Amino acid sequence: MNKIITISREYGAGGHSIGLQVAEKLGVPFYDHDIVRETAKASGFDPELVESEGEDVSRTDSILKSICAVSSVNYKDTQETIHNVQKAIIVRLAQQGPCVILGRCADEVLREAGIESLNVFIHADDVHRAVRVSEMTGSNNATEIQRLMAKKDNSRHNYYNRYTGKKWGDSRNYHMTLDSGMLGYDLCIKIITETAQAMD
Amino acid sequence: MNKIITISREYGAGGHSIGLQVAEKLGVPFYDHDIVRETAKASGFDPELVESEGEDVSRTDSILKSICAVSSVNYKDTQETIHNVQKAIIVRLAQQGPCVILGRCADEVLREAGIESLNVFIHADDVHRAVRVSEMTGSNNATEIQRLMAKKDNSRHNYYNRYTGKKWGDSRNYHMTLDSGMLGYDLCIKIITETAQAMD
Repeated sequence: MNKIITISREYGAGGHSIGLQVAEKLGVPFYDHDIVRETAKASGFDPELVESEGEDVSRTDSILKSICAVSSVNYKDTQETIHNVQKAIIVRLAQQGPCVILGRCADEVLREAGIESLNVFIHADDVHRAVRVSEMTGSNNATEIQRLMAKKDNSRHNYYNRYTGKKWGDSRNYHMTLDSGMLGYDLCIKIITETAQAMD
Repeated sequence: MNKIITISREYGAGGHSIGLQVAEKLGVPFYDHDIVRETAKASGFDPELVESEGEDVSRTDSILKSICAVSSVNYKDTQETIHNVQKAIIVRLAQQGPCVILGRCADEVLREAGIESLNVFIHADDVHRAVRVSEMTGSNNATEIQRLMAKKDNSRHNYYNRYTGKKWGDSRNYHMTLDSGMLGYDLCIKIITETAQAMD
Protein backbone atom coordinates (compact mmCIF):
# COMPACT_ATOMS: atom_id res chain seq x y z
CA MET A 1 0.00 0.00 0.00
CA ASN A 2 1.53 3.32 -0.99
CA LYS A 3 -1.41 5.54 -0.11
CA ILE A 4 -1.84 8.26 2.45
CA ILE A 5 -5.26 8.02 4.05
CA THR A 6 -6.91 10.95 5.81
CA ILE A 7 -9.85 10.38 8.12
CA SER A 8 -12.32 13.09 9.15
CA ARG A 9 -15.08 12.09 11.52
CA GLU A 10 -18.07 13.03 13.61
CA TYR A 11 -17.51 12.80 17.36
CA GLY A 12 -18.36 9.31 18.64
CA ALA A 13 -18.45 7.73 15.17
CA GLY A 14 -15.33 5.66 15.86
CA GLY A 15 -13.02 7.45 13.41
CA HIS A 16 -10.03 7.16 15.76
CA SER A 17 -10.50 3.45 16.37
CA ILE A 18 -11.19 2.73 12.69
CA GLY A 19 -8.19 4.80 11.52
CA LEU A 20 -5.88 3.11 14.01
CA GLN A 21 -6.93 -0.38 12.92
CA VAL A 22 -6.67 0.50 9.21
CA ALA A 23 -3.10 1.69 9.86
CA GLU A 24 -2.29 -1.54 11.75
CA LYS A 25 -3.71 -3.73 8.98
CA LEU A 26 -1.73 -1.82 6.36
CA GLY A 27 1.40 -1.69 8.52
CA VAL A 28 1.73 2.09 8.27
CA PRO A 29 1.98 4.84 10.97
CA PHE A 30 -1.13 6.43 12.46
CA TYR A 31 -0.98 10.15 13.31
CA ASP A 32 -3.30 12.00 15.64
CA HIS A 33 -1.92 13.54 18.82
CA ASP A 34 1.57 13.03 17.48
CA ILE A 35 0.87 15.99 15.22
CA VAL A 36 -0.09 18.06 18.24
CA ARG A 37 3.08 17.16 20.11
CA GLU A 38 5.23 17.89 17.06
CA THR A 39 3.46 21.20 16.55
CA ALA A 40 4.05 22.12 20.17
CA LYS A 41 7.72 21.24 19.97
CA ALA A 42 8.21 23.07 16.69
CA SER A 43 6.28 26.20 17.59
CA GLY A 44 7.10 26.61 21.26
CA PHE A 45 3.39 26.77 22.15
CA ASP A 46 1.86 24.96 25.07
CA PRO A 47 0.70 21.45 23.95
CA GLU A 48 -2.71 21.87 25.56
CA LEU A 49 -3.25 25.13 23.73
CA VAL A 50 -2.21 23.62 20.40
CA GLU A 51 -4.51 20.67 20.92
CA SER A 52 -7.48 22.92 21.62
CA GLU A 53 -6.66 25.05 18.60
CA GLY A 54 -6.37 21.84 16.62
CA GLU A 55 -10.08 21.38 16.28
CA ASP A 56 -11.91 22.65 19.33
CA VAL A 57 -12.68 26.19 18.30
CA SER A 58 -14.88 26.96 21.31
CA ARG A 59 -12.06 26.15 23.75
CA THR A 60 -9.69 28.29 21.72
CA ASP A 61 -12.02 31.21 22.09
CA SER A 62 -11.46 31.20 25.83
CA ILE A 63 -7.92 29.85 26.32
CA LEU A 64 -6.24 31.44 23.33
CA LYS A 65 -7.90 34.82 23.70
CA SER A 66 -6.98 35.08 27.38
CA ILE A 67 -3.35 34.14 26.70
CA CYS A 68 -3.16 36.63 23.85
CA ALA A 69 -4.69 39.35 26.03
CA VAL A 70 -2.17 38.77 28.82
CA SER A 71 0.85 38.54 26.53
CA SER A 72 -0.23 41.31 24.11
CA VAL A 73 -0.01 38.90 21.18
CA ASN A 74 -2.39 39.15 18.21
CA TYR A 75 -5.08 36.44 18.54
CA LYS A 76 -5.59 35.90 14.82
CA ASP A 77 -1.83 35.75 14.11
CA THR A 78 -1.39 33.14 16.84
CA GLN A 79 -4.21 31.00 15.40
CA GLU A 80 -2.66 31.26 11.95
CA THR A 81 0.81 30.40 13.22
CA ILE A 82 -0.38 27.25 14.98
CA HIS A 83 -2.39 26.21 11.93
CA ASN A 84 0.55 26.85 9.59
CA VAL A 85 2.97 24.85 11.73
CA GLN A 86 0.43 21.98 11.79
CA LYS A 87 0.09 22.16 8.02
CA ALA A 88 3.86 21.97 7.55
CA ILE A 89 4.05 18.96 9.88
CA ILE A 90 1.20 17.15 8.10
CA VAL A 91 2.93 17.68 4.75
CA ARG A 92 6.26 16.48 6.16
CA LEU A 93 4.69 13.34 7.65
CA ALA A 94 2.93 12.59 4.35
CA GLN A 95 6.19 13.02 2.46
CA GLN A 96 7.80 10.37 4.66
CA GLY A 97 5.50 7.71 3.18
CA PRO A 98 2.16 5.90 3.49
CA CYS A 99 0.26 6.64 6.71
CA VAL A 100 -3.16 7.34 8.21
CA ILE A 101 -3.77 10.92 9.42
CA LEU A 102 -6.77 11.75 11.61
CA GLY A 103 -8.59 15.09 11.48
CA ARG A 104 -6.91 18.53 11.36
CA CYS A 105 -8.11 19.19 7.78
CA ALA A 106 -5.35 16.87 6.56
CA ASP A 107 -7.39 16.16 3.40
CA GLU A 108 -7.34 19.81 2.38
CA VAL A 109 -3.76 20.43 3.57
CA LEU A 110 -2.49 17.59 1.36
CA ARG A 111 -4.67 18.66 -1.57
CA GLU A 112 -3.18 22.15 -1.40
CA ALA A 113 0.32 20.66 -1.24
CA GLY A 114 -0.39 18.51 -4.33
CA ILE A 115 0.02 15.25 -2.39
CA GLU A 116 -2.46 12.54 -3.37
CA SER A 117 -4.44 10.93 -0.56
CA LEU A 118 -7.53 8.80 -0.04
CA ASN A 119 -9.87 11.06 1.93
CA VAL A 120 -12.48 9.36 4.12
CA PHE A 121 -15.26 10.78 6.33
CA ILE A 122 -16.82 8.62 9.07
CA HIS A 123 -20.22 9.47 10.52
CA ALA A 124 -22.97 7.68 12.42
CA ASP A 125 -26.50 8.18 13.74
CA ASP A 126 -26.97 9.73 17.17
CA VAL A 127 -27.84 6.45 18.91
CA HIS A 128 -24.64 4.66 17.90
CA ARG A 129 -22.57 7.76 18.70
CA ALA A 130 -24.21 8.27 22.10
CA VAL A 131 -23.42 4.69 23.12
CA ARG A 132 -19.82 5.15 22.00
CA VAL A 133 -19.44 8.50 23.80
CA SER A 134 -20.89 7.00 26.96
CA GLU A 135 -18.29 4.22 26.72
CA MET A 136 -15.45 6.73 26.10
CA THR A 137 -16.39 9.22 28.80
CA GLY A 138 -17.91 6.86 31.36
CA SER A 139 -20.96 9.14 31.51
CA ASN A 140 -24.56 7.92 31.57
CA ASN A 141 -26.01 11.41 31.49
CA ALA A 142 -27.90 11.67 28.19
CA THR A 143 -28.15 15.47 28.24
CA GLU A 144 -24.42 15.79 28.89
CA ILE A 145 -23.61 13.32 26.07
CA GLN A 146 -25.92 15.18 23.68
CA ARG A 147 -24.31 18.52 24.57
CA LEU A 148 -20.81 17.07 24.14
CA MET A 149 -21.62 15.62 20.70
CA ALA A 150 -23.11 18.91 19.50
CA LYS A 151 -20.17 20.92 20.87
CA LYS A 152 -17.45 18.69 19.40
CA ASP A 153 -19.17 18.44 16.01
CA ASN A 154 -19.69 22.17 15.94
CA SER A 155 -16.00 22.77 16.67
CA ARG A 156 -14.84 20.40 13.94
CA HIS A 157 -17.38 21.88 11.56
CA ASN A 158 -16.18 25.44 12.25
CA TYR A 159 -12.51 24.48 12.08
CA TYR A 160 -12.97 22.72 8.72
CA ASN A 161 -15.07 25.50 7.25
CA ARG A 162 -12.69 28.20 8.47
CA TYR A 163 -9.57 26.65 6.96
CA THR A 164 -10.99 25.04 3.83
CA GLY A 165 -13.98 27.21 2.92
CA LYS A 166 -15.85 23.95 2.33
CA LYS A 167 -18.73 22.25 4.07
CA TRP A 168 -17.68 19.63 6.64
CA GLY A 169 -19.47 16.36 5.94
CA ASP A 170 -20.48 17.16 2.34
CA SER A 171 -19.80 13.93 0.47
CA ARG A 172 -18.21 15.81 -2.42
CA ASN A 173 -15.22 16.81 -0.27
CA TYR A 174 -14.24 13.17 0.29
CA HIS A 175 -13.44 10.14 -1.86
CA MET A 176 -15.46 7.93 0.45
CA THR A 177 -17.82 8.44 3.37
CA LEU A 178 -19.06 5.62 5.59
CA ASP A 179 -21.83 5.30 8.18
CA SER A 180 -20.10 3.35 10.95
CA GLY A 181 -23.41 2.91 12.79
CA MET A 182 -25.06 1.04 9.93
CA LEU A 183 -21.96 -0.72 8.57
CA GLY A 184 -20.17 -1.45 11.85
CA TYR A 185 -16.51 -0.66 12.61
CA ASP A 186 -15.12 -3.96 11.27
CA LEU A 187 -16.74 -3.52 7.87
CA CYS A 188 -15.56 0.12 7.69
CA ILE A 189 -11.99 -1.03 8.43
CA LYS A 190 -12.25 -3.74 5.75
CA ILE A 191 -13.65 -1.35 3.12
CA ILE A 192 -11.01 1.35 3.70
CA THR A 193 -8.13 -1.15 3.87
CA GLU A 194 -9.15 -3.00 0.70
CA THR A 195 -9.84 0.24 -1.18
CA ALA A 196 -6.36 1.57 -0.32
CA GLN A 197 -4.82 -1.72 -1.43
CA ALA A 198 -6.86 -1.83 -4.66
CA MET A 199 -5.64 1.65 -5.62
CA ASP A 200 -1.96 0.68 -5.60
CA MET B 1 -27.41 -11.12 -0.76
CA ASN B 2 -30.70 -10.10 0.77
CA LYS B 3 -30.21 -6.34 0.66
CA ILE B 4 -32.01 -3.62 -1.19
CA ILE B 5 -29.53 -1.08 -2.53
CA THR B 6 -30.53 2.48 -3.46
CA ILE B 7 -28.23 4.61 -5.58
CA SER B 8 -28.42 8.40 -5.77
CA ARG B 9 -25.94 10.14 -8.05
CA GLU B 10 -24.62 13.31 -9.63
CA TYR B 11 -25.19 13.55 -13.38
CA GLY B 12 -22.30 11.99 -15.29
CA ALA B 13 -20.83 10.24 -12.26
CA GLY B 14 -21.69 6.80 -13.64
CA GLY B 15 -24.37 5.90 -11.08
CA HIS B 16 -26.52 4.14 -13.70
CA SER B 17 -23.69 2.04 -15.04
CA ILE B 18 -22.36 1.23 -11.55
CA GLY B 19 -25.85 0.34 -10.24
CA LEU B 20 -26.55 -1.89 -13.22
CA GLN B 21 -23.30 -3.82 -12.81
CA VAL B 22 -23.77 -4.18 -9.05
CA ALA B 23 -27.21 -5.69 -9.73
CA GLU B 24 -25.72 -8.06 -12.33
CA LYS B 25 -22.95 -9.19 -10.00
CA LEU B 26 -25.46 -9.80 -7.20
CA GLY B 27 -28.00 -11.43 -9.54
CA VAL B 28 -30.83 -9.08 -8.52
CA PRO B 29 -33.13 -6.79 -10.56
CA PHE B 30 -32.13 -3.22 -11.40
CA TYR B 31 -34.88 -0.57 -11.43
CA ASP B 32 -34.70 2.82 -13.07
CA HIS B 33 -37.03 3.62 -15.95
CA ASP B 34 -39.07 0.56 -15.07
CA ILE B 35 -40.42 2.59 -12.17
CA VAL B 36 -41.45 5.33 -14.58
CA ARG B 37 -43.25 2.93 -16.87
CA GLU B 38 -45.00 1.27 -13.95
CA THR B 39 -46.00 4.66 -12.58
CA ALA B 40 -47.38 5.65 -15.93
CA LYS B 41 -49.38 2.46 -16.25
CA ALA B 42 -50.71 2.67 -12.70
CA SER B 43 -51.57 6.35 -12.73
CA GLY B 44 -52.81 6.82 -16.28
CA PHE B 45 -50.37 9.72 -16.79
CA ASP B 46 -48.29 10.18 -19.90
CA PRO B 47 -44.93 8.33 -19.47
CA GLU B 48 -42.94 11.34 -20.64
CA LEU B 49 -44.65 13.53 -18.10
CA VAL B 50 -44.04 11.05 -15.29
CA GLU B 51 -40.40 10.74 -16.25
CA SER B 52 -39.88 14.48 -16.16
CA GLU B 53 -41.68 14.70 -12.81
CA GLY B 54 -39.46 11.86 -11.62
CA GLU B 55 -36.45 14.05 -11.10
CA ASP B 56 -36.31 16.84 -13.62
CA VAL B 57 -38.11 19.58 -11.78
CA SER B 58 -37.39 22.29 -14.34
CA ARG B 59 -39.06 20.31 -17.13
CA THR B 60 -42.03 19.65 -14.88
CA ASP B 61 -42.47 23.34 -14.37
CA SER B 62 -43.21 23.80 -18.06
CA ILE B 63 -44.83 20.52 -19.17
CA LEU B 64 -46.87 19.82 -16.07
CA LYS B 65 -48.06 23.38 -15.58
CA SER B 66 -49.21 23.67 -19.19
CA ILE B 67 -51.10 20.37 -19.04
CA CYS B 68 -52.71 21.34 -15.75
CA ALA B 69 -53.71 24.72 -17.17
CA VAL B 70 -55.36 23.18 -20.23
CA SER B 71 -57.15 20.43 -18.29
CA SER B 72 -58.08 22.55 -15.24
CA VAL B 73 -56.29 20.12 -12.93
CA ASN B 74 -54.49 21.32 -9.80
CA TYR B 75 -50.72 21.43 -10.46
CA LYS B 76 -49.63 20.61 -6.91
CA ASP B 77 -52.13 17.75 -6.58
CA THR B 78 -50.87 16.25 -9.85
CA GLN B 79 -47.25 16.44 -8.67
CA GLU B 80 -48.20 14.82 -5.38
CA THR B 81 -50.19 12.08 -7.11
CA ILE B 82 -47.33 11.14 -9.41
CA HIS B 83 -44.88 11.16 -6.50
CA ASN B 84 -47.19 9.06 -4.34
CA VAL B 85 -47.75 6.47 -7.06
CA GLN B 86 -43.96 6.28 -7.53
CA LYS B 87 -43.48 5.82 -3.80
CA ALA B 88 -46.01 2.99 -3.69
CA ILE B 89 -44.27 1.28 -6.63
CA ILE B 90 -40.82 1.62 -5.05
CA VAL B 91 -42.12 0.07 -1.82
CA ARG B 92 -43.81 -2.77 -3.75
CA LEU B 93 -40.65 -3.52 -5.73
CA ALA B 94 -38.57 -3.52 -2.54
CA GLN B 95 -41.05 -5.88 -0.88
CA GLN B 96 -40.57 -8.34 -3.75
CA GLY B 97 -36.94 -8.92 -2.68
CA PRO B 98 -33.33 -7.79 -3.08
CA CYS B 99 -32.77 -5.26 -5.88
CA VAL B 100 -30.93 -2.10 -6.90
CA ILE B 101 -33.08 1.05 -7.24
CA LEU B 102 -31.69 4.17 -8.93
CA GLY B 103 -32.69 7.71 -7.94
CA ARG B 104 -36.25 8.89 -7.22
CA CYS B 105 -35.53 9.41 -3.49
CA ALA B 106 -35.80 5.63 -3.04
CA ASP B 107 -33.57 5.88 0.05
CA GLU B 108 -36.04 8.14 1.84
CA VAL B 109 -39.13 6.35 0.50
CA LEU B 110 -37.89 3.03 1.93
CA ARG B 111 -36.80 4.65 5.21
CA GLU B 112 -40.30 6.06 5.64
CA ALA B 113 -41.79 2.64 4.86
CA GLY B 114 -39.53 0.99 7.46
CA ILE B 115 -37.74 -1.12 4.84
CA GLU B 116 -33.99 -1.48 5.43
CA SER B 117 -31.71 -0.62 2.53
CA LEU B 118 -28.07 0.16 1.83
CA ASN B 119 -28.12 3.77 0.60
CA VAL B 120 -25.28 4.87 -1.67
CA PHE B 121 -24.45 8.23 -3.28
CA ILE B 122 -22.09 8.41 -6.27
CA HIS B 123 -20.35 11.67 -7.20
CA ALA B 124 -17.30 12.73 -9.20
CA ASP B 125 -15.25 15.79 -10.05
CA ASP B 126 -16.28 17.93 -13.02
CA VAL B 127 -13.54 16.64 -15.34
CA HIS B 128 -14.52 12.98 -15.02
CA ARG B 129 -18.20 13.87 -15.31
CA ALA B 130 -17.69 16.08 -18.37
CA VAL B 131 -15.87 13.28 -20.20
CA ARG B 132 -18.69 10.87 -19.33
CA VAL B 133 -21.43 13.31 -20.38
CA SER B 134 -19.62 13.95 -23.66
CA GLU B 135 -19.54 10.19 -24.26
CA MET B 136 -23.26 9.83 -23.37
CA THR B 137 -24.55 12.78 -25.38
CA GLY B 138 -22.04 12.76 -28.23
CA SER B 139 -21.44 16.47 -27.62
CA ASN B 140 -18.02 18.13 -27.62
CA ASN B 141 -19.40 21.53 -26.66
CA ALA B 142 -17.93 22.31 -23.22
CA THR B 143 -20.40 25.10 -22.43
CA GLU B 144 -23.33 22.87 -23.33
CA ILE B 145 -21.96 20.01 -21.18
CA GLN B 146 -21.39 22.36 -18.26
CA ARG B 147 -24.92 23.75 -18.55
CA LEU B 148 -26.40 20.24 -18.75
CA MET B 149 -24.51 19.05 -15.66
CA ALA B 150 -25.62 22.09 -13.65
CA LYS B 151 -29.23 21.73 -14.80
CA LYS B 152 -29.51 18.01 -14.09
CA ASP B 153 -27.80 18.28 -10.69
CA ASN B 154 -30.02 21.20 -9.78
CA SER B 155 -33.14 19.23 -10.68
CA ARG B 156 -32.10 16.21 -8.64
CA HIS B 157 -31.09 18.47 -5.78
CA ASN B 158 -34.47 20.24 -5.79
CA TYR B 159 -36.43 17.01 -6.15
CA TYR B 160 -34.58 15.39 -3.24
CA ASN B 161 -34.88 18.46 -1.01
CA ARG B 162 -38.56 18.91 -1.82
CA TYR B 163 -39.59 15.38 -0.96
CA THR B 164 -37.18 14.57 1.86
CA GLY B 165 -36.46 17.96 3.47
CA LYS B 166 -32.79 16.88 3.51
CA LYS B 167 -29.70 18.06 1.69
CA TRP B 168 -28.87 16.09 -1.46
CA GLY B 169 -25.25 14.89 -1.33
CA ASP B 170 -24.78 15.38 2.43
CA SER B 171 -22.86 12.29 3.50
CA ARG B 172 -25.05 11.86 6.58
CA ASN B 173 -28.07 10.95 4.44
CA TYR B 174 -26.31 7.88 3.01
CA HIS B 175 -24.60 4.79 4.40
CA MET B 176 -21.83 5.14 1.85
CA THR B 177 -20.74 7.76 -0.68
CA LEU B 178 -18.09 7.15 -3.33
CA ASP B 179 -16.11 9.40 -5.67
CA SER B 180 -16.25 7.46 -8.94
CA GLY B 181 -13.74 9.83 -10.53
CA MET B 182 -11.00 9.07 -8.01
CA LEU B 183 -11.90 5.42 -7.34
CA GLY B 184 -12.97 4.37 -10.84
CA TYR B 185 -16.19 2.55 -11.74
CA ASP B 186 -14.80 -0.97 -11.26
CA LEU B 187 -13.65 -0.28 -7.71
CA CYS B 188 -17.00 1.37 -6.86
CA ILE B 189 -18.82 -1.73 -8.15
CA LYS B 190 -16.53 -3.99 -6.09
CA ILE B 191 -16.95 -1.93 -2.90
CA ILE B 192 -20.77 -1.77 -3.11
CA THR B 193 -21.11 -5.46 -4.08
CA GLU B 194 -18.84 -6.70 -1.30
CA THR B 195 -20.42 -4.39 1.28
CA ALA B 196 -23.89 -5.68 0.43
CA GLN B 197 -22.64 -9.27 0.67
CA ALA B 198 -20.81 -8.63 3.95
CA MET B 199 -24.01 -7.27 5.52
CA ASP B 200 -25.98 -10.48 4.99
